[in-house]
Amino acid sequence: MRKTTQSKQVQSAPVAFERPAPRRVALVGFGNVGSAVAKILCERTDGLPRLTHICNRNFERKKQPWVPGDVIWTDDFQTILHSDADIIVELIGGLTPAEDLVRGALKAGKAVVTANKQLIARHGPDLLQLASASGSQLEFGASVAGGVPVLPALRTGLCGDRLHGIAGILNGTCNYILSRIESDRIPFSEALEEAQARGYAEADASEDLDGGDARAKLSILALAGLQVRANPADIRARSIRAIDAVDFDYAAELGCTVRQISRADLKDQTLFAEVGPSLVPTSSPFGRVQRNLNLVMTSGEYGGDVAFLGAGAGGDPTAVAVVSDLMFVAENLASGPRPQRRLQLGSPRVSCDFETPWYLRLVVKDQPGIIASLASILSAHHLNIDAILQKPGFEKTALPFVITLEPSRDGQLQPALQEMSALPFAVRPCLCLPILR
Amino acid sequence: MRKTTQSKQVQSAPVAFERPAPRRVALVGFGNVGSAVAKILCERTDGLPRLTHICNRNFERKKQPWVPGDVIWTDDFQTILHSDADIIVELIGGLTPAEDLVRGALKAGKAVVTANKQLIARHGPDLLQLASASGSQLEFGASVAGGVPVLPALRTGLCGDRLHGIAGILNGTCNYILSRIESDRIPFSEALEEAQARGYAEADASEDLDGGDARAKLSILALAGLQVRANPADIRARSIRAIDAVDFDYAAELGCTVRQISRADLKDQTLFAEVGPSLVPTSSPFGRVQRNLNLVMTSGEYGGDVAFLGAGAGGDPTAVAVVSDLMFVAENLASGPRPQRRLQLGSPRVSCDFETPWYLRLVVKDQPGIIASLASILSAHHLNIDAILQKPGFEKTALPFVITLEPSRDGQLQPALQEMSALPFAVRPCLCLPILR
Repeated sequence: MRKTTQSKQVQSAPVAFERPAPRRVALVGFGNVGSAVAKILCERTDGLPRLTHICNRNFERKKQPWVPGDVIWTDDFQTILHSDADIIVELIGGLTPAEDLVRGALKAGKAVVTANKQLIARHGPDLLQLASASGSQLEFGASVAGGVPVLPALRTGLCGDRLHGIAGILNGTCNYILSRIESDRIPFSEALEEAQARGYAEADASEDLDGGDARAKLSILALAGLQVRANPADIRARSIRAIDAVDFDYAAELGCTVRQISRADLKDQTLFAEVGPSLVPTSSPFGRVQRNLNLVMTSGEYGGDVAFLGAGAGGDPTAVAVVSDLMFVAENLASGPRPQRRLQLGSPRVSCDFETPWYLRLVVKDQPGIIASLASILSAHHLNIDAILQKPGFEKTALPFVITLEPSRDGQLQPALQEMSALPFAVRPCLCLPILR
Repeated sequence: MRKTTQSKQVQSAPVAFERPAPRRVALVGFGNVGSAVAKILCERTDGLPRLTHICNRNFERKKQPWVPGDVIWTDDFQTILHSDADIIVELIGGLTPAEDLVRGALKAGKAVVTANKQLIARHGPDLLQLASASGSQLEFGASVAGGVPVLPALRTGLCGDRLHGIAGILNGTCNYILSRIESDRIPFSEALEEAQARGYAEADASEDLDGGDARAKLSILALAGLQVRANPADIRARSIRAIDAVDFDYAAELGCTVRQISRADLKDQTLFAEVGPSLVPTSSPFGRVQRNLNLVMTSGEYGGDVAFLGAGAGGDPTAVAVVSDLMFVAENLASGPRPQRRLQLGSPRVSCDFETPWYLRLVVKDQPGIIASLASILSAHHLNIDAILQKPGFEKTALPFVITLEPSRDGQLQPALQEMSALPFAVRPCLCLPILR
């Protein structure tokens, strides 16, 4: 029996290993990433899928001389859905109308490649199920960390491990701002303005600064790496807006710097997950990430820690991720419908109740008895002080100083913080950052 | 026409997306990595390929209680080749008899997963061709950098780019030794002994220290990432044996440290490639790699630089790479013979004639006129001195000092080095290291 199967395989080889016929690609969304994808497809001549359609509003003003004349331009999704394209690349972003387009394409049996993090973070499990049911494929390697191939690595080189944790610097805007404050001790507002002037931050940067962008990405990493559903809305996001130059001075005293860290740890039936500014050792991979780069670190039961570093955004790097997915999908199409792994996702409780040491930075109007008041609140909540740091040279009316705490749970700390912020000498709410080791 | 194809796909979905029947795996080589692979296959219950055969010399003494009773143990390759296993995992290493086993398995239409760097470095292109011709598959993700999924990333997430360079710290033994000299300024011989005592270096560590191991890995990275044939024997390898504590002192003056770096740059029809100790900035990703970790950095036309960091060796991390390949191969088997990309490899000239700044460390018997003699040789070869560094506190009879040169070609420098080593005051041959930026 076995012998027969083998010789059949051998006989079919000359056909099987011809280069597959180039697949037909429709690109929806011809912005920064879309035009970079088109450029790679038009420039590379080594058997990539062929660009056949481009869909964009007001496409007339978008037309480029380097796009071949036989590519069909349209502003109508229906034209794309009813076209002979095998693969739809969705690069319009956001939920509406991207969701309808992706669902429509999958239902029509077309493969979909998308870079849409909001869509995958919210509806990824559902859309993967739909792709399976339609005998189609859905790939989203560009939706997290742009040109850093962490999602493809989770699909291939790391699938042999059993991962229990993922942490990353997933938002280039925050990293740019924080590493600029670090290097020149400029105020937060100045770093933000600089990032906006350089095109690293939007005019309304809330989605970046307040963690909305990063938690969507963390949710996708948890889906692909930890095989769990985690609604981004259930992941706590703390803003980086309260970070100022003085925090880098105090962090340095502790051998640390400050970065926006997204992390998810799966323990039993709980996913500990959060996004927010954190103290990280300057000697750690996280502490060294500069400018708008991204870093993702996975932790596995067998393989230990693996780190990925590269450009998290930008048209060209993101386009590499999209084209890589296109090539993967095209190869799969060439071998007929491919049995996907059944989607077996856990649905753990999502909690931000990490146990960790803490950095508390207070700004007070100096007066006698401050430490005593604070120490008594902390003690009442069974929180142990590790160190008290106070740098000279500040105004007595707005004196920043730092208390570090021994490891304790987030849930144990929060009530103490509330009490501390209500104290009469507190000029600003206490800034509270986890210290990662 | 198109409609028909699509609805056929949809109809076949319920069958196509059932979990594929578990594939049968024969493991050849039950050492450190082999037993770790077996352990993952026996421990994980989520539809991994099933371990059916284990082949090892004197297998009786190897038997483990956690291996299921129905697994067949043998010491005979032929038993494996004629078995009903779909996938052969080759973990015996070396060329003989691994090559015969792999060829035999591929010819029999079986898929092969191997971690054998010497085999792939020497015969990779040929074996890939054989796999294609036999309608079979060959995967070797574990052959470079163990648990760091750089080879799978080259196959998937980076294939959309056009890579032109790869550089890495590919040998954990060298990195352990160099980072130990760096941290405690111990002599080379002491660092080597320590590495041997800890099991990071073999009794005869020549293959590691002299670059043979790393250049085999570089050849595989060039194959997978740059699509070129590069015979490892054509890649120059310089030994790290001449590095001593004083080099870290001088390197530090230049903002650098010393690491064994393997690098390959494809320019036009030339592959510039070499392996050897090099000065790297302490602030660069390379300069920060400690202990026996591995780091690989790829440089692409579109995506820029991407770095991968992790455990380069060890049973468990390497086993993750093997099992990941197994899962990839098993999925492909489930969809029938899969059209592989035709192997279109370049065969560039391999050269070590990099243009780079240089670090020359001389050890001389002090006497008047040394700098004048050296400067006149360098000048005669059109080599420009950038700086001369001499630290105090050394014996006059064996005085180490350093000359740095402005960027120049390796081929331009070598004749000057020969002349310099023949000078009467030279106590040791001049140590010459490229300075990477």
